[in-house]
Amino acid sequence: MKIVRFRADNKVKYGILAGESIQAIEGKPFRNLKPADSRYRLSEVKLLSPCTPSKIVALGFNYRSHVEEINTRVPDVPLIFLKPSTAVIGPEDNIVYPPSSTRVDYEGELGVVIKKSAWRVPVENTADYVLGYTCFNDVTARDLQTRDKQWTRGKSFDTFAAVGPCIETELDLGNVVVETYLNGELKQRANTNDLIFAVPQLVSFISEVMTLLPGDIIATGTTSGIGPMSPGDTVEVRIAPIGTLRNYVIKDAG
Amino acid sequence: MKIVRFRADNKVKYGILAGESIQAIEGKPFRNLKPADSRYRLSEVKLLSPCTPSKIVALGFNYRSHVEEINTRVPDVPLIFLKPSTAVIGPEDNIVYPPSSTRVDYEGELGVVIKKSAWRVPVENTADYVLGYTCFNDVTARDLQTRDKQWTRGKSFDTFAAVGPCIETELDLGNVVVETYLNGELKQRANTNDLIFAVPQLVSFISEVMTLLPGDIIATGTTSGIGPMSPGDTVEVRIAPIGTLRNYVIKDAG
Repeated sequence: MKIVRFRADNKVKYGILAGESIQAIEGKPFRNLKPADSRYRLSEVKLLSPCTPSKIVALGFNYRSHVEEINTRVPDVPLIFLKPSTAVIGPEDNIVYPPSSTRVDYEGELGVVIKKSAWRVPVENTADYVLGYTCFNDVTARDLQTRDKQWTRGKSFDTFAAVGPCIETELDLGNVVVETYLNGELKQRANTNDLIFAVPQLVSFISEVMTLLPGDIIATGTTSGIGPMSPGDTVEVRIAPIGTLRNYVIKDAG
Repeated sequence: MKIVRFRADNKVKYGILAGESIQAIEGKPFRNLKPADSRYRLSEVKLLSPCTPSKIVALGFNYRSHVEEINTRVPDVPLIFLKPSTAVIGPEDNIVYPPSSTRVDYEGELGVVIKKSAWRVPVENTADYVLGYTCFNDVTARDLQTRDKQWTRGKSFDTFAAVGPCIETELDLGNVVVETYLNGELKQRANTNDLIFAVPQLVSFISEVMTLLPGDIIATGTTSGIGPMSPGDTVEVRIAPIGTLRNYVIKDAG
């Protein structure tokens, strides 16, 4: 099942996407999915980020191929960092290239959307706390990330967390292919079976540190093939069972 | 003027503290401070964190004395990191010592509370975007911070962001003394005139990266004298014109 968030009739709603049709639901999708009276055609709504996270907990160095690419060692425990809620954009939204950076990279990732408040969840129970999965682009000002050493500034600009197009509630986690395309050209291709720490481990580990709230996102890390984007570029993160998250890189208006 | 947030009559309210008396206000204090009908004695309410930040943007290496203490160089630009909203506690709340750390430190700081949405604010206009100032304890699992190199995990545990007791709207920023006491013994003593990047620079710099929202906190950094706490300890951050933020370190219940 594909959960979307969208604007229609000047209101923001959640719904279930089936083909080209959206069945609106009442309220938020975290507790139950009660159908509302309204139905929309996909073409007549504006899709938004499918959730509004209070925080995004992202992973560094979580694919073996990426660890090899940047010549670092495989971490003993998940390496986490935060991206702020103000960085979130949805499908078809613009990624704004900030004036303080000269190298802004895509990082295509599988995103995990939290269903209910999660604190110290054992690995074997984590599935109960996950609403579903989405495409995520962990946009990064690589030059600032390198200069600061701490990753926060380079990862926290407004528009640097692209999410969507939907939350797929059913996904076979063992063999998910995550692809990133720049102007239609394949740049990254990850398989989740190459993840160093898999989704249940991540949910459990992070919930040992901090309470995860409904709608929070875990960005599971990127694979090899990271690279720069330029204003005018179109970037896509594609995960076949979820869909395509497409965004456009634009020059800062100043 | 001192703005507090508190629980009384099983409701959460904001109010103005004067001596031992609180004048409740209607709604939130960010737009206006309209008095409500109710008045409380300070002794009959539970003070809460005076705001509920969507994010906390904290500073590393922002006091000359702390930079000397840890033998690093003065940064060219502010070094920022994030603490999540789920870490926030209020005055008299417990700091929970997590089982995964063996060294949890206090870091007494001046906190800046944002008044209205701030994006790319020039230095000279930042005062309009600040509601006021509070005491902040940037609690840090030093061992995990060192091990991960990225600071997020060590700084993000639930209860690791103590805020309060109030938001003081009038403060002469030129000469504010920030003191940290552990079990009544003075451990840190900072003067804001030793800040490498002052409050207006910080608000402007951070708002160039990300939109700051009403209630968001900037933790301006800690000074020399950082050190460990143990279960059973009482830690206080004192800024005379604001008040004392007192918290208790407890063992994790497991």
